[in-house]
Amino acid sequence: MQAKVIWKGDMGFVGQADTGFTVDLDAAAAVGGHDGGFRPMELMAISLAGCTAMDVISILKKKRQTITGFDVRVDADQAGEHPHAFTSAAITYAVVGHEVQEDAVRRAMELSAVRYCPAQSMLSQVMPIVLNYEIYEDEGENQHSMKIKGVLELNEQ
Amino acid sequence: MQAKVIWKGDMGFVGQADTGFTVDLDAAAAVGGHDGGFRPMELMAISLAGCTAMDVISILKKKRQTITGFDVRVDADQAGEHPHAFTSAAITYAVVGHEVQEDAVRRAMELSAVRYCPAQSMLSQVMPIVLNYEIYEDEGENQHSMKIKGVLELNEQ
Repeated sequence: MQAKVIWKGDMGFVGQADTGFTVDLDAAAAVGGHDGGFRPMELMAISLAGCTAMDVISILKKKRQTITGFDVRVDADQAGEHPHAFTSAAITYAVVGHEVQEDAVRRAMELSAVRYCPAQSMLSQVMPIVLNYEIYEDEGENQHSMKIKGVLELNEQ
Repeated sequence: MQAKVIWKGDMGFVGQADTGFTVDLDAAAAVGGHDGGFRPMELMAISLAGCTAMDVISILKKKRQTITGFDVRVDADQAGEHPHAFTSAAITYAVVGHEVQEDAVRRAMELSAVRYCPAQSMLSQVMPIVLNYEIYEDEGENQHSMKIKGVLELNEQ
């Protein structure tokens, strides 16, 4: 797989990959950029969130869960010292639907973590990653109520 | 730092991070997607390319090199087996300019690798990363000629 970033001047780059899509990257004004695009480490966090999100939604669909909304958040801590690497992260899966089963969500998260998600497999080797989930009941008309909130401990499984 | 992906249906997600920029993610049609955005692992490769590219361009500027073009390519190998993690990568820095000094390019690459780039610091712990460079002389009118091509071995330094 090939990806590249092409310089646009100052700290601005356009990123592109095999699929042909493009994304702007830039640095903050404080470090010579113009804030014209993603910080590179934001794309790493989105890569992790997107990778596991695709696994989980596709497993929940196979488990015949009725999902009406879904997002996956990554909160990453960065070291204060150079190179400011991520030191830990929490992934929070927020699932909205009708009578979504907690076991199905936990199993989907587990399969993504231990079998399917390359980003998680790689990044979990260099930092601890906590796995949280929140399940909401869809009440219609864009209303939903929290049903359950939990943490998946992989060694519990 | 926080980033999230929000489900759009099927395998499509929109990614967003603290800076407020957004990027579309999707899977290939073969796995239930609509090819409407980046694959997550493409964003990881772009994260790595962009992170080290920003370091190198800013160091080359400090070293008063005249740069007229610059791109950084990541070629990553993915395992055939699940979770299809990256198993190795090559980063190729292509620098175009006027009498760009090889030593300056090598030193900038080294500083990014060992001190400044969080993505490289993290990913080099889970796979070998080869560092290539190509220096071109800008001949004007969008023409340039290759001057030198090399590999930086970090333990040589």
